[in-house]
Parts: sequence; C-alpha cells; structure tokens
Amino acid sequence: MPVATQSLEELCINSIRFLAVDAVEKAKSGHPGLPMGAAPMAFVLWNHFLRVNPKNPYWFNRDRFVLSAGHGSMLQYALLYLAGFDSVTMDDIKQFRQWESKTPGHPENFMTPGVEVTTGPLGQGISNAVGLAIAEAHLAAKFNKPDHTLVDHYTYVIMGDGCHMEGVSGEACSLAGHLKLGKLIALYDDNHISIDGSTDLAFTEDVGKRFEAYGWHVVVVEDGNTDLDAIQKAIEEAKSVTDKPSMIKVRTTIGYGSPTKANTAGVHGAALGGDEVTATRKQLGWEYEPFEIPEDALNYWRKAVERGAKYEEEWNLNWENYKAHYSAEAEEFARLLSRKLTEGWEKSLPTFTPEDKADATRNYSGKCLNALAGVLPEIIGGSADLAHSCMTLIKSSGDFQPGHYENTNIRFGVREHGMGAICNGIALHNSGLIPYGATFLVFADYMRAAIRISALSNAGSIWVMTHDSIQLGEDGPTHQPIETIASLRAIPKLTVLRPADGNETSGSYKVAIEAANENRPTLLALSRLAQPNLAGTSIEGTAKGGYIISGGEETPDIILIGTGSELQLCAGAADKLRAEGKKVRVVSMPSWELFDAQDAGYRESVLPKAVTKRLAVEAASSFGWCRYVGTEGDMISIDRFGVSAPGPVALEKFGFNVDNVLARAKALLG
Amino acid sequence: MPVATQSLEELCINSIRFLAVDAVEKAKSGHPGLPMGAAPMAFVLWNHFLRVNPKNPYWFNRDRFVLSAGHGSMLQYALLYLAGFDSVTMDDIKQFRQWESKTPGHPENFMTPGVEVTTGPLGQGISNAVGLAIAEAHLAAKFNKPDHTLVDHYTYVIMGDGCHMEGVSGEACSLAGHLKLGKLIALYDDNHISIDGSTDLAFTEDVGKRFEAYGWHVVVVEDGNTDLDAIQKAIEEAKSVTDKPSMIKVRTTIGYGSPTKANTAGVHGAALGGDEVTATRKQLGWEYEPFEIPEDALNYWRKAVERGAKYEEEWNLNWENYKAHYSAEAEEFARLLSRKLTEGWEKSLPTFTPEDKADATRNYSGKCLNALAGVLPEIIGGSADLAHSCMTLIKSSGDFQPGHYENTNIRFGVREHGMGAICNGIALHNSGLIPYGATFLVFADYMRAAIRISALSNAGSIWVMTHDSIQLGEDGPTHQPIETIASLRAIPKLTVLRPADGNETSGSYKVAIEAANENRPTLLALSRLAQPNLAGTSIEGTAKGGYIISGGEETPDIILIGTGSELQLCAGAADKLRAEGKKVRVVSMPSWELFDAQDAGYRESVLPKAVTKRLAVEAASSFGWCRYVGTEGDMISIDRFGVSAPGPVALEKFGFNVDNVLARAKALLG
Repeated sequence: MPVATQSLEELCINSIRFLAVDAVEKAKSGHPGLPMGAAPMAFVLWNHFLRVNPKNPYWFNRDRFVLSAGHGSMLQYALLYLAGFDSVTMDDIKQFRQWESKTPGHPENFMTPGVEVTTGPLGQGISNAVGLAIAEAHLAAKFNKPDHTLVDHYTYVIMGDGCHMEGVSGEACSLAGHLKLGKLIALYDDNHISIDGSTDLAFTEDVGKRFEAYGWHVVVVEDGNTDLDAIQKAIEEAKSVTDKPSMIKVRTTIGYGSPTKANTAGVHGAALGGDEVTATRKQLGWEYEPFEIPEDALNYWRKAVERGAKYEEEWNLNWENYKAHYSAEAEEFARLLSRKLTEGWEKSLPTFTPEDKADATRNYSGKCLNALAGVLPEIIGGSADLAHSCMTLIKSSGDFQPGHYENTNIRFGVREHGMGAICNGIALHNSGLIPYGATFLVFADYMRAAIRISALSNAGSIWVMTHDSIQLGEDGPTHQPIETIASLRAIPKLTVLRPADGNETSGSYKVAIEAANENRPTLLALSRLAQPNLAGTSIEGTAKGGYIISGGEETPDIILIGTGSELQLCAGAADKLRAEGKKVRVVSMPSWELFDAQDAGYRESVLPKAVTKRLAVEAASSFGWCRYVGTEGDMISIDRFGVSAPGPVALEKFGFNVDNVLARAKALLG
Repeated sequence: MPVATQSLEELCINSIRFLAVDAVEKAKSGHPGLPMGAAPMAFVLWNHFLRVNPKNPYWFNRDRFVLSAGHGSMLQYALLYLAGFDSVTMDDIKQFRQWESKTPGHPENFMTPGVEVTTGPLGQGISNAVGLAIAEAHLAAKFNKPDHTLVDHYTYVIMGDGCHMEGVSGEACSLAGHLKLGKLIALYDDNHISIDGSTDLAFTEDVGKRFEAYGWHVVVVEDGNTDLDAIQKAIEEAKSVTDKPSMIKVRTTIGYGSPTKANTAGVHGAALGGDEVTATRKQLGWEYEPFEIPEDALNYWRKAVERGAKYEEEWNLNWENYKAHYSAEAEEFARLLSRKLTEGWEKSLPTFTPEDKADATRNYSGKCLNALAGVLPEIIGGSADLAHSCMTLIKSSGDFQPGHYENTNIRFGVREHGMGAICNGIALHNSGLIPYGATFLVFADYMRAAIRISALSNAGSIWVMTHDSIQLGEDGPTHQPIETIASLRAIPKLTVLRPADGNETSGSYKVAIEAANENRPTLLALSRLAQPNLAGTSIEGTAKGGYIISGGEETPDIILIGTGSELQLCAGAADKLRAEGKKVRVVSMPSWELFDAQDAGYRESVLPKAVTKRLAVEAASSFGWCRYVGTEGDMISIDRFGVSAPGPVALEKFGFNVDNVLARAKALLG
C-alpha cells in the first residue's frame, strides 16, 4: 500500500512496528514479532485511554502500563519515544540492547523512566500489575472522599501466551478476581505462537473460560490487526465493568506485516534479516528510512505530551482543593509520596533484656510489625495462607477485601510466587507503600524469581520467612530449610537477616523499613520456637550485620560466630570456656550483606584476621561460611536434608547443643 | 451412634479417622482435619478401585496413588496400614512424626514403600501425578499390542484447596488437559477451609470451570461425607471418560466428626486435644482405644491383600504370555524395569580434540542427548518452550501428544515449575524412564522447589539449563544468571555440572545418566555461545568433578581453576605465564559435588594444600568459592546483576578475558 493512502492511524501504528523492526535489526538481537502484532492495540490504548504525562513519568495519578511480555521491549520503547518521554530518545532506540543503554533487552524500571516494573521472566509483569492495582485501590479507599477523588487510575497490561502459561500469573489473577480489582485491564496478545511454534503444541486451554472462572470480565476482539474500533470498544467495555478485572483477548498475527515470517515462531525472537525487513517495508508500504518517523505520525503521537500536561495540571488543581478541605489526610498523603517516614517511627520498636521471657523470633516479628503498623500505616501485606504461623496479621486493621480496600491485611492464599510479584507491584507503585509477604522460609523456593526481581528492580518489599531451620521439627525435610538461607544470601542486593532474639528482630525491622524506604528489599529468617533474649544484643549491632556480643575487650583465643537460634549456643559455650580460663569472643552475625558493607576497620575489629580459630554455628548449610570461618576454622552446620521429628530432638541429633559447641571449640583450641 | 449399628463401611471409614486422630494426638503434632474429612473418598477409592498389591508396593502395573495434600499424611499411613502394606505397622503409626520413623510428617517415598512421591509442598503431588500418568501413557503406547495389554493403570490423586491455589498445579493440569491424559483422576477434597480459615478469604474462583477450561472432565459429589454411592459413581464416570483427565469435586467437612472443631481452620493442622478426641469418639460412636481397629473393619480392609495378590498374579500370567509372543519388546521392557542400561551405552557419547570446531556446550548437549536417545530409548523429556534454544529436541522421535504417546519429546510450554514436578513424577514412576527438563539457567528459580524435591526424594531427573552466564548477552540481567549456580550447588544431593567443552559435556551426560539410573538428579549448566575444545579435558576427568588439565607434573607456583566457558581463559593465561617461566597448573572444576566426593588423596593431588596461590575464574558469583580458593587466593567473578549487551561485550567489561586472568595471576604471584 503506497504511503499516500495510509491513514494517519496506520502511519502511527507502523511507526511502532518499524522502530521495533529496525532496532532489532540493528542490534541483530531481539523480539520483533510481538511489537509488530501488538502495535494496533498499543496504539489504541496509548492514544485513546492511557493517562500519563510523558514529561513527568512519575506523576502520581498516572495510569500504569505494564508490558508483561517483556521480550517485546521494543514495543515499550517505541511507545515511550513516540509519546514523547524524555527517557527514550531516537539515539537510545538505536542503542537497543547495547552496553548500558536506556533500552536494554527487557524493560528495566531502574534504567528507563516510564517503565514501571522490570519484566522479562514471564508471568511477573501481569502479577506485578495486580499489585499496582491493589495499591491504587488501597490508596483510593484511604484518601478519596465522596466529593474529592484524588486517587483514580487504571493499570493496563499487554501480555501474551507465555505469561498465561506461567503458574505465577494464575495465582495473581485468581486473587485479582477474588479481590474484584475493577481497574485492572489486561490485553492478551492472542497470536497462537510461542517460541517453539504454534500454541497447539502445548497450550490449548480455553483461556477466556479460565478467566471467567477467576471472576474476570472477558472480552474478545476477533481482529486485533486492523479493527481498531473493536479494540477501542473492548477497552471501553472493560472500563465500564467496575467490579471485575478485565481480560481482553485480542486476536493478532505475530510479526504482522512480515511477508514470510508473520505467524511463525521464527519472528518471535530473532531479527528479520535485511531481505525480510525490505519485504516488510514493501508489504506495509513504509517508505521511511530506519529510525525515521513521518512527521504527521509523530505529531499525532506527541499530542500525548499536551494531554499529559493537562491531566497533571487538572490533578494538581484537584490536589490543591483536596489539601484545602482535608488537610490532615493531605498531610499524610504528601508524607507518603515524599517517602518521609513518620518522625520517630523507630522508637516504636521494642527492646529487650535477658530478663524478658524467651520467645520465638517469629513472635517478635509479629510484635514489631504491629508496633510499626501503628506509626507507619503504609505497611501493607500478608502471608500465603500462614497468618497464624508467620504471625503477620496487623491487628489494628482488617482484611483487604472488596468493599474494604482501606485495610492492610492481604490474604494471598497459598500462592507464594503470586504474593511475591504482587508485593513487588505494590512497592513499585512508588507511592510510599511498604509491602511485606510472608511464608515458611523453605517456600522462598516457590517465589525465588520474584525475590530476585525485587533485588534487581529496586522494589522495597519485605520478605518475612519463618520456620527457618530444622528447629521447626515434625513437618520434616520438605519443610526444613537447609540450603535456603545460603541461596538467598547469594542474591545480589538482597539484605538477609537472621535475628537471634527480640532486640535483633527489632533491629532487623529497623533495617527492613529503612531499606524499603530506599527501594531495597530485605528478607528476614525467623524461628518457630522460643529462644532467650541474650545479653549484648542490640538494634544498633544488628544494623552492622555482625557485631560482638561478648569478649570484645581483648584479643580472643577463639571466636564463636552464631546466627539466629544458634547464637544462644555460642553464648552458653562461651560461658563454659571462660570458666576454664579461655578468652572467648562471641560474635552475632545476623546479616552477611550488612557486615560486608561495613568498613574494613570495623570488620577487622570484630573478626581480626590474626584470630584464625573460629567456630561458626548455624542450623543450616555451611555453604559459603568459609568466608568468615577461614581455612583454619570449623563450623557446626547441617549439610544434608532434615528429618521429621520434634524440633528439639532434631536439633539435638544434629549437634546443635552447648556441649557440642564446647567440644568443637576445644578441639579447635587444641 | 452406638457401635452396634455402624455399618461395616462406617467402621472402615472411622478406622481411618481415628488412626489419624490418635496418631496426631500422640505426636501432639500433625494435621487431623483432612484425614477425617477425606476418609470416605479414600475408603471408596482404595476398596473399590485402587489396584495395588500391599505385599508388593513396587509391582509394576499398580495404580499410583498420590496424596498431594501431603500434610494429611496420616490419611496415607492409615490407608497403607489398613490395606496391609508391611511398610506401615501399628508401631509405625504410633511413631508418627518421630525421629526416623516410617511415618514422617509428610509422605516420603524414600522412607515408606507405598508412598509414590514426596509431598508436603503444595501443588507438587498433583503435578507429579501428571508425570506418573505421562509415564503410563508412554509405556502403554510403546509396549501394548492390540491383543496384549501389558501396561494399564490409573493415577489417582487426593488434593485440596492449597494445591489448587498453587500455580504449579495450574501449569501441570493445563498440560494434562492438552495431553488428554484420560487415566489421571483427581479427587478434590473440597472443604472450603485452608490454614487461615474459610476459602472465602482468598480463594473464590470456580475451580470446576477452570478445569473444564483446561480440558478436564469435572464431576461433582455434593455430599462427600456420607454419600459413598455418589463417590463411587463419580469415580466410575471419571474412568469412563478416556480422553480427558478427571477432577472430582468432593464436598466434605474438614475434621468431620469433631463436634466443636469440624469445619474450622483449627482442625487443619493441630491435634484435637484430649477433650475433643473424646468428644469425637462419642459423636462418631467409636468405642475403640487409640490404635485399636475393630476386627471386622480390618478384615474388610485386608481383602486388599488378597485382591492385590490376584491382580499381580494375573498380570504375571499376562506378562508370560506377552514374553512368548513379543520377545524383543519383552526383552526391552524387562531391561527397563530392571534398570539395566543398554550395554555399551556410554560409547555413544562423542569425544573431541582441540582440532574440533568450537561450539557452545548447549549444542554439545544436544548432540549428547540425541546420541544417547539412540541407545537409551528410555530418555524422555523436553523444555519449557525453549526447544531450539536449549537444543533439547530428540530428532529421532516426535512429539509426545494425544495419539502419539510413544514419542519422547514433551512440549511443556512456558511452565518451568510444572515441568520440574512432572519430570519427577516420570522418574518416580520407577520404570526406568529417564526424564529431562530444560530451560534457561536463570529460570531454575521458577522451578527450584521441584529441583529440591528431586534431590530429596531420589528422583533421577536431569535438569538441562542453558544460557548459563552473562555470556548470553543482550537479554540482560533478568536472564543472566549470577548467583544461580551457587544456589543450586547448595542443594544437598544434587550434582551440578558446568562443562567447558565437548568432552566435558559428554562427561556430564555420562554422570547424569548414571545418576538417573541410581535415582539421583543432576543439573547441567550450559553455555549459549561457542567455546573451544581444550587440550586435557576428558570424560573421565569430568566424573571426578575437578581435575588437572595441564601442569600436573610438578608442584605449581599457582593454580588456575576454571569452569565452563571460563576454563579457556585459564588455559590461555597459563600459556602466557609459562612462557614467562612460571609453573602453572590449570584445574577444571566442572562439579563441586563430584570433586568433594573423591578421596582426600585425590583432592590433595589436584589442589595441594600447600599451594595457596589460587585463582578461580567463573562468570558467576564468588559465593562459596572460598572453599577451593582459600583465604590467600583470588577470584574473577561477577557479584552484581548483569547488563543487557552483546555477550562478548559483557564478558569483556566484567573482566572475563585472558589478559585480566593473566594480570590477576601475576598479582597473586607477587
């Protein structure tokens, strides 16, 4: 079709297509298929519905857009460029997939303003979107007044077959339906193709029916390639259904416009190749050079700038009005958005002495959460159907449910992975909310991908993981973490804490809240059974990750390093060794990452290089402990799977008792 | 209801209930609710349908029973005891949840014959069951003849709300529907209660509709507490539908029989307590002592022994007949069941010299798989929609699809976790099949729980993980493994291999097949890009986990340790150092676990304690490497998230090049 007869809409849509085609071609890497096929729905969404301000990607009341099919990142970059975001220039597009460009292979929120969440691993984006919608609903319930709507935006997603196959998305979408999140709208790029070929190979379920089963409103667009009206009507219909999230199945052709590769798996994840690029230009009547956008199309697209400025301006007036009428609420709202924690919040954290009754750190955790929730109402979260095991109910609030979105206890159900991605979405809504997700530590395995992404994408989620060792007892080896904590310590940018008692749990929450406030995730490993409050522990020490709780006055003969429930064993053994005249230092090491972040002088003062006789004690795998134990030290660990037995029996059988610590220490001392 | 008027069936059903109630009470730990509620369906299933031989829990053609709701383990133990399995005696029941008993907290196949798979982590069991059903369908297609049915058994599952909420079960069940696995029948203990309370809190989807969407046949039993006829008819109906798996929703009351705790979350996971136990006895008219089973009931239950012996006897006759008519097939069938690998199978593995063209280890992996499939037709598996990326298609076979279950390429779809659990099910069908599941290494995170269970439960699955480092390039940090391999090395009883070239890939497959044959899982980490075949690498060396590829003749000044794609850098730097007169040893360390398993003398010979100048090179996290590098050594690693850029650029920027290895080695040498 010659250029002259292309409608303005076709020009706009093909602008998306060819930015993608050409960027992928230049990079000789990437996924052109989805951008080509989803361009029409993206055009309709971004030009007729999406309320964003390209010049202020962080405007509070913007609609959120998530490209869950993150491999189609050139779609997102094309949209950001065309709509006039400063974060993606034409040079950035030309640098697609190159070292430190603003247009990495999969969208990264920490790299490119305008990108809300980091996607790529399938299923995460749509699940994050459920979190974004939860955040909107919560803030709307908290702040909106009958005569003043302050919070009012939609969460839109473009997703494909891959995301639908992933279990995490089923978890999150089932919960979204239960929660009746009416302002969540997903467009399903229904192209019947995945990497291996036709979806006939492995994915023949009735997706629409499944989403109806979840309680979603399902709309079908038969021709998502050319019927823009139908797409528009579908989104309008979705918006009109306010008590259900919506899934719009948009039938498309992957790689639309490519003469020989459209509708094949080959166009999913590889550059078209020079010949095919030329042929596609011909087929779609696109006579422009690579990275050249026709002026008419660009002007049309760039109306988003004007619109966006207007949206924000209107909202600002609205905000001024709100402030005038509801000053207290406005102050709180402003506090949240400015990420200013309530003055003196940390004072709410309880402290303990050895005289205080022994208790499980999961219980101290519950106390901390509840104390903090009293001064930081931005804390919102829950567990994967383990509220009374993880002790994570906020007693001063109710359940977040339809009609009660103002509440802060989210009932995630047995959906760890969905919970993880949802929490990340709440954090990345970027409105000061502090989400937490809880389960048994061993089930961190179910949600590891979401935990990893929280670290990668600067999502300040707090992961509350209880039942952290063989100490949990009778549930047995499927439930007893062994290598879990090592596997989590290995994740870059994730702070892992294993507190020993009440003070250290309070200290862990201080770290966690500060980290969340700085968009960094934290993971707490907490015990099932009671352990005593020890002398020498403190909130301040916990923040250093590793610190001396006794024996710091002189160079010791031996250092006992303990974490969590095993620190008490070190303390007990130290007493006995000292009674025999030995110079013993006891070091608590609640967090490797925090300790490693201290300056060398501090670390040397705690673990002097010259003192090579070191005994670490942790009811977990020894994997990685050589870092602190050295080659001359020893460790009491457990490097095999556990056993079903009462907790104290298991601990005893595996050598976690004071006598064994004493014996191993003496062996080291020689 | 007084005992005298209890029907025999009621006595039998209450036998289950009270074994569970009393065992949990004695242990003061456990989950009585599900056994009490699911007892009727279990009774009907085990007495009217399940074909097992209690005296031979490993009889090939037994029906498989999986308790996916593993916390209800006392249900399974009660069934095994009542049906006459020798693996669970009354003493074992009394030792429920005690150190090393045969009745651990969650069912463990490696502990208790009669338990097919290890459950506990929700969603795994039903997903394993899909694998068991795949195994049956495959073997039936391979071996059954029009006039001789050798393979013919069902896979039954009891599952609850928790399993249904978990995403992994959705993945596996969607695939099961696509694959039309008609002999998979799940009974859904539909009690509307989970740990946190009513399912109204978080789980209000229409499960029946969702399963219809998956292509399952759905049946509803309105009263699963007392309507045994309805349960029976439902299972008959399920069996009559041969082209769809079946989901039977059985409406039950959790903790049925307990006057004050039935239908509450409290009865899910805690002992009833003495008073309630007494009250339950009264309510159900059970006048027997704890662990006392009425003779009539036991006799009825124990008919399973007689039935089972007959089933097996009939099958043996059938087998003799088959052998007589189809001797070649029978020989192969016997070979599989006896776990005897084809004579000389390992000779099919290719070997290489440095003159052979460089290639990616994912490609060598594809060659190995295909070579092995030619001599070991028991190899069956696939990827999570990454067949042409992971190179895991077996070219000599077609896709495992309805009507073609004889094929060995399973198209899992984008369902890593489901794939993992399904592979475990295939392995634990215990018929000699060797399953493999493939995806990108970073997505091991999605399926970690299944990988862990493969190690715990002795499931000989082979995990083929490609794109194993920043070398994969442009897809960026969401796809680039950093800490993944460390996190997997930390899993007990999992052998992780990262081969450097063709020989080591062949060596890795030799290890993997041998391990699978011994019910041990293996994980291979393979490169995306080509690397050269190096001098000194070998299949034999790979099996030792760490070995010298050059510089073994004398005590070296420095040892360079490399794995996978970085070994070549060590070899290159070694050449340069030797040119400068240095004594350099290059050690390849494809597998930590295998190396650690060698005797101390061997390990000392490879890494002599006295040689403290060691430089390790791996494009991954340094986490744990101090084990081999010591406190005086160094490492070129990457301990931060990656970046989207072409692979060679990323490697270069992060210091993975010969010059940097040389420089760091020299710095060590001083």
